[in-house]
Amino acid sequence: MPKPKLNVAMIGYQFMGRAHSNAWRQVARFFEDLPYEPVLKVVCGRNADAVSKAAEQFGFEESSTSWEEVVARGDLDVIDVCTPGDSHLPIVLGAAAAGKTILCEKPLANSVAEARQMRDAAEAAGITHMLCHNYRRAPAVQLAKRIIDEGRIGRIHHYRGTYLQDWIVDPEFPRVWRLEKAKAGSGALGDIGSHSLDLGRFLVGEIAEVSGLLETFVKERPLEDGSGMGAVDVDDAALALVRFENGAIGSVEGTRFAPGRKNYNRFEINGAKGSVVFDLERMNELEVYEEEGPDSGFKTILATDEAHPYIAAWWPPGHIIGYEHTFTHTVLDLLRALHEGVKPTPNFEDGLANQLVLDAIERSAVSRKWEDV
Amino acid sequence: MPKPKLNVAMIGYQFMGRAHSNAWRQVARFFEDLPYEPVLKVVCGRNADAVSKAAEQFGFEESSTSWEEVVARGDLDVIDVCTPGDSHLPIVLGAAAAGKTILCEKPLANSVAEARQMRDAAEAAGITHMLCHNYRRAPAVQLAKRIIDEGRIGRIHHYRGTYLQDWIVDPEFPRVWRLEKAKAGSGALGDIGSHSLDLGRFLVGEIAEVSGLLETFVKERPLEDGSGMGAVDVDDAALALVRFENGAIGSVEGTRFAPGRKNYNRFEINGAKGSVVFDLERMNELEVYEEEGPDSGFKTILATDEAHPYIAAWWPPGHIIGYEHTFTHTVLDLLRALHEGVKPTPNFEDGLANQLVLDAIERSAVSRKWEDV
Amino acid sequence: MPKPKLNVAMIGYQFMGRAHSNAWRQVARFFEDLPYEPVLKVVCGRNADAVSKAAEQFGFEESSTSWEEVVARGDLDVIDVCTPGDSHLPIVLGAAAAGKTILCEKPLANSVAEARQMRDAAEAAGITHMLCHNYRRAPAVQLAKRIIDEGRIGRIHHYRGTYLQDWIVDPEFPRVWRLEKAKAGSGALGDIGSHSLDLGRFLVGEIAEVSGLLETFVKERPLEDGSGMGAVDVDDAALALVRFENGAIGSVEGTRFAPGRKNYNRFEINGAKGSVVFDLERMNELEVYEEEGPDSGFKTILATDEAHPYIAAWWPPGHIIGYEHTFTHTVLDLLRALHEGVKPTPNFEDGLANQLVLDAIERSAVSRKWEDV
Amino acid sequence: MPKPKLNVAMIGYQFMGRAHSNAWRQVARFFEDLPYEPVLKVVCGRNADAVSKAAEQFGFEESSTSWEEVVARGDLDVIDVCTPGDSHLPIVLGAAAAGKTILCEKPLANSVAEARQMRDAAEAAGITHMLCHNYRRAPAVQLAKRIIDEGRIGRIHHYRGTYLQDWIVDPEFPRVWRLEKAKAGSGALGDIGSHSLDLGRFLVGEIAEVSGLLETFVKERPLEDGSGMGAVDVDDAALALVRFENGAIGSVEGTRFAPGRKNYNRFEINGAKGSVVFDLERMNELEVYEEEGPDSGFKTILATDEAHPYIAAWWPPGHIIGYEHTFTHTVLDLLRALHEGVKPTPNFEDGLANQLVLDAIERSAVSRKWEDV
Repeated sequence: MPKPKLNVAMIGYQFMGRAHSNAWRQVARFFEDLPYEPVLKVVCGRNADAVSKAAEQFGFEESSTSWEEVVARGDLDVIDVCTPGDSHLPIVLGAAAAGKTILCEKPLANSVAEARQMRDAAEAAGITHMLCHNYRRAPAVQLAKRIIDEGRIGRIHHYRGTYLQDWIVDPEFPRVWRLEKAKAGSGALGDIGSHSLDLGRFLVGEIAEVSGLLETFVKERPLEDGSGMGAVDVDDAALALVRFENGAIGSVEGTRFAPGRKNYNRFEINGAKGSVVFDLERMNELEVYEEEGPDSGFKTILATDEAHPYIAAWWPPGHIIGYEHTFTHTVLDLLRALHEGVKPTPNFEDGLANQLVLDAIERSAVSRKWEDV
Repeated sequence: MPKPKLNVAMIGYQFMGRAHSNAWRQVARFFEDLPYEPVLKVVCGRNADAVSKAAEQFGFEESSTSWEEVVARGDLDVIDVCTPGDSHLPIVLGAAAAGKTILCEKPLANSVAEARQMRDAAEAAGITHMLCHNYRRAPAVQLAKRIIDEGRIGRIHHYRGTYLQDWIVDPEFPRVWRLEKAKAGSGALGDIGSHSLDLGRFLVGEIAEVSGLLETFVKERPLEDGSGMGAVDVDDAALALVRFENGAIGSVEGTRFAPGRKNYNRFEINGAKGSVVFDLERMNELEVYEEEGPDSGFKTILATDEAHPYIAAWWPPGHIIGYEHTFTHTVLDLLRALHEGVKPTPNFEDGLANQLVLDAIERSAVSRKWEDV
Repeated sequence: MPKPKLNVAMIGYQFMGRAHSNAWRQVARFFEDLPYEPVLKVVCGRNADAVSKAAEQFGFEESSTSWEEVVARGDLDVIDVCTPGDSHLPIVLGAAAAGKTILCEKPLANSVAEARQMRDAAEAAGITHMLCHNYRRAPAVQLAKRIIDEGRIGRIHHYRGTYLQDWIVDPEFPRVWRLEKAKAGSGALGDIGSHSLDLGRFLVGEIAEVSGLLETFVKERPLEDGSGMGAVDVDDAALALVRFENGAIGSVEGTRFAPGRKNYNRFEINGAKGSVVFDLERMNELEVYEEEGPDSGFKTILATDEAHPYIAAWWPPGHIIGYEHTFTHTVLDLLRALHEGVKPTPNFEDGLANQLVLDAIERSAVSRKWEDV
Repeated sequence: MPKPKLNVAMIGYQFMGRAHSNAWRQVARFFEDLPYEPVLKVVCGRNADAVSKAAEQFGFEESSTSWEEVVARGDLDVIDVCTPGDSHLPIVLGAAAAGKTILCEKPLANSVAEARQMRDAAEAAGITHMLCHNYRRAPAVQLAKRIIDEGRIGRIHHYRGTYLQDWIVDPEFPRVWRLEKAKAGSGALGDIGSHSLDLGRFLVGEIAEVSGLLETFVKERPLEDGSGMGAVDVDDAALALVRFENGAIGSVEGTRFAPGRKNYNRFEINGAKGSVVFDLERMNELEVYEEEGPDSGFKTILATDEAHPYIAAWWPPGHIIGYEHTFTHTVLDLLRALHEGVKPTPNFEDGLANQLVLDAIERSAVSRKWEDV
């Protein structure tokens, strides 16, 4: 019996578009029990030539230059939003109004108000909505979640989340859109710090209050068009101390000024009975310490056993998977949730919750004191 | 201008079939300058239902139960051989006779005589032939090759190749086909030791002579059908000392009896000025030592920079790739070679050369003395 | 020509006494050019039997139960203070008044007022004074200092100092003296967080302001004498965001609640051109990243080359040294400074500076806002 | 009650003399229950000035230029032989004839005949004799032994011992005594390969047969006195395949041509249920894998717990020890054995056994076939 088809439209076709389209193509090839057969219907962007080329490259049947037309089409089931953050709001509102299932790339919005509006609209429309915080779906991160939920490291005392990159440390690096507040909302904070926050919320719990610090080391950079220098009005680095509602304490950091750290999304969690450590640059591994006497030690679990999350569909033990697989798993879980009629996570509720924390950090950076979330 | 299409038939659809079909699907999605557009025409296997299901799963247009019919079809350009080693010979001979381009999974054959026959047939037919030793095309391995070729570690003195796994260490693990000489040709030697050999030949040079040791720790195992015990007539572990033609010395090892080593395909190469170390379980990394005074040290290069082999087509720095990408790169280089009219490597000549080394190790294990290759 | 003798008295003989006495014994055995020959004259403690046994064990000529008598003796040159922090003040004041050279274990004092008094007294007396922050003198830490001072990692943007231990995570662990504010001054903050602070000051610069957080997870514990439960009035964990005077930002943390981290005194420093990382559990290694194109990577320098600080006196490359050697190097540098008539570092000025930062963290933890140092 | 004194004479005062004298000085300072108090009586060497300086440096009461006189003295209990291998025979025979306890640095001899003569003489004299293979007494190595003996990794299948250094890879490095067969006996084989062999015998069992390979990459080097070039007549690198009597198989390697490997004495042992890995450059750590389901992984045990061998006498968990401590532990166990009237291990019997394996490797390198030990 053939599976029901699910027609997918993707808005945006840059870096995230490449990752998302791959996920839509691959998920049915590896997960045999997938409840739907995704069909890559249409990809949408502003430049007709470029989006047409993207359609061919990524395997979409058609391309479009109007997201308004796309969300209005009756033959589409899912709208996958891969554009920069400043356009999420209208697209999501439009797609929600049209009753589509929505997958939206993080961060959900550039402000709390926007995030709340999107969450409310999606809920009011009764649609299925999901936020793409893909790192939750690295098998090793899911394994960390399982170990924590099983109580194997006990009550959590500490969370240390750091997301370090180095791509703008050179002051001659140009003032790209990610360094403009109007387009990107914030700098390292929303781009990568938000991942550390989301993983903290996923693995430890809700954050109650924060003390934040934002810093811009290089305050102006060459404009991309060569016409001179432009101001950098977002943070190069964001740090925060955090208190979780459950009593755990911790720190969260995102910076683009850490030479040698290419994509170092690391967390360490210490509980009453053990610890777990993850580093995205070695995303197939989870370091786990369980207290069991003098011969205890951090062990490196290669999260590629068929008993580990998602892995049975891929390769035998020891054959590692890559970055893009985390998106495939996200799509997989969206389709499963859709089929089962349950809410996928993270969803727009989480997007709002994350935005509230980001907002508290920004407020704290100004007030120079602890701020409630 | 649309790219010329290249019609692909794949014989076999198990583990390797999954990896190869993924490569054929993905290569055009990520490598924009690919000279052809591969079309997954037909997959072939003995069980009609299973192969039909595989066709759907892997995205082939059709399925077939007769490789003879497949290789005889006029509309197919490439025959991709993914079956166990004992069936490579007839399929390759048939495909060569039909003038097809052939990609054959390693090891090329179960004996030197077979390998030579295949090499000769392919050469006589004037076809393009390639052997799938996929690990050559991990970016970090290609980076090692580049570093060596640039003379950065100097003349090579030592090669240490070890491929360790642990999947049959339990004596209750059944006597599967890989443990039968008639089907698999050999055990750890041909299955994984052959990778260490191939990497040695790729990175260091031709092997002149060997002293080998083969061991079967568990000499009989439960039959899969539950009908009793069956003899294991292949090696559980294979070790060899080797001398290269260029004066380097080394060791090569394959074993399935190393608990905790899931897919530990590691090599260390020491030259006069530096060293390189690779481990497949961390396949995105290359450890490199270059002698430059007291502050020298092994550095871990995350081989994900856009300047690194193959990577620009995938993701930004620090976003790692997985096991299956090595197959995609293999297909990529086959298509490029086909387009440019040059011989891809490794090809059936390498398959024969590898088989000669394996044969020398087996002879040495019996004679208990050094044997020329 | 025999070297001039230097008569040493040590006050205290527990853990630190063992480490300091070893340093006094070993320094002349390995550093041939030592300007003095230290003589272990007298060790002092309150329990006559125990201190007598310690004298024999550690190789002192005599023992004493009165530090007042010891500091008053005319035949002693150096007073080495190894007692808990609450007794540093009177001993240091006495020794300074007597014109002795003083080596004092960290933290210098339990309060800013005490530290200032000690600094002032030592300066007024014109004596040579040194604070024993031994980790500054791990060769790998000195190498980090050299690399930073040579400008090899450029202007510093980030400091991340974390000192993690796990010895009190069990709530049944007793309420020892280190968990009493009256004796220990503070908990993780002064005991281990102070090391992270001191290393930050040593390697990055002076700290201008902080936002701190202190937490006590287990608020009462069994008394050691079995008479019931006692309150824990010091911090189990201390975290702070910090801003350095030179514009660098960072975080400092000390906790005794990190299972598996036995003595994990780690720092990571990111500059404009590179990074350095140190971990005390692998104290012979320094990880260094220097940006030099696509093949850059963190390299592990085994800081055991004869060109590395202190090492020529010990063993050949690759033969590692241990924890106690950092104390031997401290004593070495004290004796060299004494001989050359220069101020050793860190000294009581640093002790005061560190105390000011600790104090600001404590104030901030109460005020819940940033505090100037 | 004071401990009985034990008067120690040390023959030789170079690198090993420094390590041994440190052990004799330190053992009583840290191991409170030591049954004797060692007294460093006399150090012996050929150069009167140099040995006199060494006596002062190392803390010996006297120096001597005649080992014959030293071994003949009635007031000495222990003769500690730290000279190069070509002088071990006469000194040991003399000391044995005089009834002294002997500690002899490895390798025991430069030939099987010499080793047998020394073993026989020591046994005939009824003296206590010990061979200083110090690496057996790294706590992590003892922990490996304990884990193996407790059956935690099951029956052993594989031993991989590699000892890699890089100090002569430069062809301009001079022809020092260690590169002369007449003085050193052999090159990498006896110097460092012998450690890998000894650890194999200690941890796995007796070696039954070997297939060996010796290579000299640089066949002549500058003489130290600048008078021209001299032949190198020892091996730069030694490799062997080995079969143990108990059925385990493995490899052993020593080389001085591995850039970046300063003192990389590594072994990996695979048993039926687990694996252990040790690397001397991180000598406080032991990597252990115990098969216990999907969440198994190699764990890094920091062998610094008070429950670990020798450690309670040193420092708290996480405070690492260094290279020289392995000698202190050797002396400790010699004194304990002497006190208890039992044979310490390794002793001259082991020295002979090791020499027999080295000899078999040398024979095999010539015969080019497997040789029995």
